[in-house]
Amino acid sequence: MVESTAFSLERYSLAARERVNGALDAYTRFDDGCPAQLSEAMRYSLLATGKRLRPLLALLAVEACGGDESAAMPAACAVEMIHAYSLIHDDLPAMDDDDLRRGRPTCHKVYGEALAILAGDALLTLAFEVLARDVQPPVVAAECCALLARAAGCSALVGGQADDLAGQFSDGGVEALMAIHRRKTGAMMLVSLQLGATIAGADERQLAALTEYGQCLGLAFQITDDLLDVRGETQAMGKRVNKDSDRGKLTYPGLLGIEESTRRAEALVARATLALEPLEPQAAGLQALALYVLHRNH
Amino acid sequence: MVESTAFSLERYSLAARERVNGALDAYTRFDDGCPAQLSEAMRYSLLATGKRLRPLLALLAVEACGGDESAAMPAACAVEMIHAYSLIHDDLPAMDDDDLRRGRPTCHKVYGEALAILAGDALLTLAFEVLARDVQPPVVAAECCALLARAAGCSALVGGQADDLAGQFSDGGVEALMAIHRRKTGAMMLVSLQLGATIAGADERQLAALTEYGQCLGLAFQITDDLLDVRGETQAMGKRVNKDSDRGKLTYPGLLGIEESTRRAEALVARATLALEPLEPQAAGLQALALYVLHRNH
Repeated sequence: MVESTAFSLERYSLAARERVNGALDAYTRFDDGCPAQLSEAMRYSLLATGKRLRPLLALLAVEACGGDESAAMPAACAVEMIHAYSLIHDDLPAMDDDDLRRGRPTCHKVYGEALAILAGDALLTLAFEVLARDVQPPVVAAECCALLARAAGCSALVGGQADDLAGQFSDGGVEALMAIHRRKTGAMMLVSLQLGATIAGADERQLAALTEYGQCLGLAFQITDDLLDVRGETQAMGKRVNKDSDRGKLTYPGLLGIEESTRRAEALVARATLALEPLEPQAAGLQALALYVLHRNH
Repeated sequence: MVESTAFSLERYSLAARERVNGALDAYTRFDDGCPAQLSEAMRYSLLATGKRLRPLLALLAVEACGGDESAAMPAACAVEMIHAYSLIHDDLPAMDDDDLRRGRPTCHKVYGEALAILAGDALLTLAFEVLARDVQPPVVAAECCALLARAAGCSALVGGQADDLAGQFSDGGVEALMAIHRRKTGAMMLVSLQLGATIAGADERQLAALTEYGQCLGLAFQITDDLLDVRGETQAMGKRVNKDSDRGKLTYPGLLGIEESTRRAEALVARATLALEPLEPQAAGLQALALYVLHRNH
């Protein structure tokens, strides 16, 4: 990870990830009748080693808007639950049919398809339970549920996956590719920031800054993901590389070349950090995170 | 349908179903980027002819507690969306592998497995969007989201389906069968009533009455469902009959015989109607609905 001068993202994110992992663990210890196999399948995917990028965005956003990190922990866990569910379902044989995820066999390879479908359903549902019950006050909880449902719904996350599967825009060029990514990856990254901001009671100026930041960051993240898919090694990525281009799917390097893709990612990260100016100095964490997205190797 | 003396359930439910169907239709006309094929698959399953039992429970509960029916319409739609999603996923090849539902080919037979999985995911998510955004005031919306998530989650609806698939209790007798049904069917019927009551601002006495009613009704519903599966014809049921007993799954008639099962259903409906006494006369609709569950032929 990259260190900014004022803020050690590496030190912060190591500790924050620990807190997130602890909360995710606690949220999935059920003592009220969840079948053991089902909770095992949920925990297998949810607690797998991961960057916890979306939770970090929620936690850093609440701080950037002057709120308290702990208030955003339920939201941080909820966005990671949605992320885990979407990976489980995307990996299914009927979908992307992947055997490997985060360096381990995918959920359905270990627990079978039926339990993997149900584990995804249960994680999606749990995200809303956690948000509705644990975000305070309830009026903010309701707003968070509505925001998350929109970002995870048929016009964003699920819709992006549907279009991606249909190969709908395989002739559509870079604009079409951006449209898929805005929904499939961008919407959940953006809503992670928005949840943190909402919980902090952000004003419109703060929300607008985070929205601009989130839109640039989401796109930059996808471009660097494509670049890693081209350059990466299976070991570093923990999943099959070149899988997108092997399938004839659109990628940024495929459409624009590696050099131009890299240039675009850099420009987007520059725009993202510029957008944070109204929030300084509390946004140092988000600044550092944008640089990390650019320079990450997994 | 059966008519009670004071209340025509048939007349009421025909009209209420129209209102529910109209609201479900409006909720699934997306103009913000939901892929056409995805919304078609969602609407194919959600708008299929159905009893709309869970929405009716929510609407009748709000009236039984002195509230206004229209205030409960978002909740009525949300529980039907959850019901539709659970049917789509339960019917998948990896799950119950059913070709026929409500008299038509199942969602995955028409749209393929991938889109059926996504349509289920999207309906589940939409349920929370509708509830969080449209139930008023927001503090009640948050409570409704938490209640629904619990009833639809891994310790109730999803957990019941996991246990059912695992045949976990196939040697467990009638107690084990009741435990599955309490989660798989009972929890969603109960929460439909609780959402209506919560939206009406019910007091503890009213909530307790509806909870007792809902628990008895849910069990009675499952017993009569099993009886219909034994007695029924595919045409009347709109789905394969004898499918449960063919698969060696536990059923009430299989464990208790037809006569004893019928007796139990009658006793449960008697208890359900007795439980409503504190709510009279506003609970006439729920009284009639209990009798309908006992005497229905589909």
